[in-house]
Amino acid sequence: MPLTVVHTKAELRSEVARLLGEHAGRRGGVPSLGLVDPPAPRASLGLVPTMGALHDGHRRLAEAAVAANDVVVASIFVNPLQFGDPKDLERYPRTLDADASLLDEIGVDLVFAPSVEEMYPGGDPLVRVTAGPLAEKWEGASRPGHFDGVLTVVAKLFHLALPGPVAGQPAAFRAYFGQKDAQQLAIVRRMVKDLDFPVDVVGVPIVRAEDGLALSSRNQFLSDEERRAALVLSRALRLVDARATAHEPLEPDDAVALIESQPGVELDYFDVVDPDTLEPLAFNCREAPFTGEALAIVAARVGDVRLIDNMPLKAS
Amino acid sequence: MPLTVVHTKAELRSEVARLLGEHAGRRGGVPSLGLVDPPAPRASLGLVPTMGALHDGHRRLAEAAVAANDVVVASIFVNPLQFGDPKDLERYPRTLDADASLLDEIGVDLVFAPSVEEMYPGGDPLVRVTAGPLAEKWEGASRPGHFDGVLTVVAKLFHLALPGPVAGQPAAFRAYFGQKDAQQLAIVRRMVKDLDFPVDVVGVPIVRAEDGLALSSRNQFLSDEERRAALVLSRALRLVDARATAHEPLEPDDAVALIESQPGVELDYFDVVDPDTLEPLAFNCREAPFTGEALAIVAARVGDVRLIDNMPLKAS
Repeated sequence: MPLTVVHTKAELRSEVARLLGEHAGRRGGVPSLGLVDPPAPRASLGLVPTMGALHDGHRRLAEAAVAANDVVVASIFVNPLQFGDPKDLERYPRTLDADASLLDEIGVDLVFAPSVEEMYPGGDPLVRVTAGPLAEKWEGASRPGHFDGVLTVVAKLFHLALPGPVAGQPAAFRAYFGQKDAQQLAIVRRMVKDLDFPVDVVGVPIVRAEDGLALSSRNQFLSDEERRAALVLSRALRLVDARATAHEPLEPDDAVALIESQPGVELDYFDVVDPDTLEPLAFNCREAPFTGEALAIVAARVGDVRLIDNMPLKAS
Repeated sequence: MPLTVVHTKAELRSEVARLLGEHAGRRGGVPSLGLVDPPAPRASLGLVPTMGALHDGHRRLAEAAVAANDVVVASIFVNPLQFGDPKDLERYPRTLDADASLLDEIGVDLVFAPSVEEMYPGGDPLVRVTAGPLAEKWEGASRPGHFDGVLTVVAKLFHLALPGPVAGQPAAFRAYFGQKDAQQLAIVRRMVKDLDFPVDVVGVPIVRAEDGLALSSRNQFLSDEERRAALVLSRALRLVDARATAHEPLEPDDAVALIESQPGVELDYFDVVDPDTLEPLAFNCREAPFTGEALAIVAARVGDVRLIDNMPLKAS
């Protein structure tokens, strides 16, 4: 089926109902063999919230959603609430036609691309979702209000895309977020838990270029030299990852020293944290052999470009 | 059908699905007369969030929900998040058995009475809904954090009670709040709008005793003398109401003077505001003849008891 692009909340709701209904119709059309029909599997809707300017990291998100769900909706909305600097908001790339082509090719059914006025009629919302202490650290420390803006728009998108009934059964509802923005993923998961949203949050692994750099729309702003320098971030993550796999002490100071030795790279933070709470691990990373699971996170400035990266750690 | 009382989120979700399913089954059981069946009306679920200790004001809420919906759920949960003072929370009356009897008699189908641990597993939620500037005035001014606590639990209850599919049609979802707590009602309406919740909020008028006092669980703490003094609040509201009906200037200063002349009553605020924004009216209430609609609001301390009341104004 060709991709449909809609721009209003009302169209989104009616198209979600129509697409899920058509899906149920196709299922119901399979001829019975005279045996007792097995119960139809639960219908499912996948939601992929994006700000557009899609790259292969987003492609992986959409592919994961298409592989697991009957109907997939991607949203493309550059959300003013999550930008601190108006200039940043203004220069954020808008590439709707290219984005729609990519999503069509992957098999996404519906794109929701609302205007700011459609999403926030009458101006900025007064009632908001707030991330509280989870937004105080790491990325939140340098972007006050950013995660509250993210949660507010994600709550709206969840409510707008909520699947209606399909053939008498509740539809499964899954939302896809990239592991690249690890703090955003953790905070969205926490919102779903704290506010009892009826949605399953699916985290999709980071996509890396061949040289190891995590894909980001910001990578295009790196010179060749800066890009070579930026590779120290993934090298540092792989250093602690190798130790985690081998049950060795992680000694994150070595990773910090590696990054700090790289000319042109200014480290903001490197740490090993609990993947859910983003709190530094309770055990002594410097001396105790690594067990269990954790997340190594890093942020640094390379030239004028701020980059983030992370790697899940697991003792094998 | 007898009332069912459940205590867990999982039971709430499954009972809502079961009750709506039974309802659809009853509808489907009407024998066809050989004519084309009319389309079944959309099924509907009514939610009545309460903190228990129910009086006739709550009765009116539940009656409104029962009259308009196929299935009605009342929640009874004394929400710690919306109490500033731990002593207040502790002494809040818990009367589940009497409340359940009342709700059963009215025809409510399901009571959801969770524990604090069930609603907030692992302690207070980190992610919350915040009321922003709407919570700075009136009741919010003397109860910091109160409305954020209300919105957070109401968002959870909306998500938990969201009706599933009924006979292939999306169910209507309505939530009932008392007009007595005018600021709470306005803030919940604003949350639904700002966050695109798929629910209709229904405001239910204030219930008054024969002497005019608005019903409240706090009235029981008034002595006979205090109760007589407290009647000045509804008298003051009726004063501006009569002028509004007659298209006269409201002259709220007269209502203020009336209240201030009453021994034993300490006025906190009396104002005439926009019912949606709770902002004072833009036009000159002192001189301009009243037109349109507005809300008169009042709060005062009578002895140790803080009372609130309000009255919708409409030029006839």
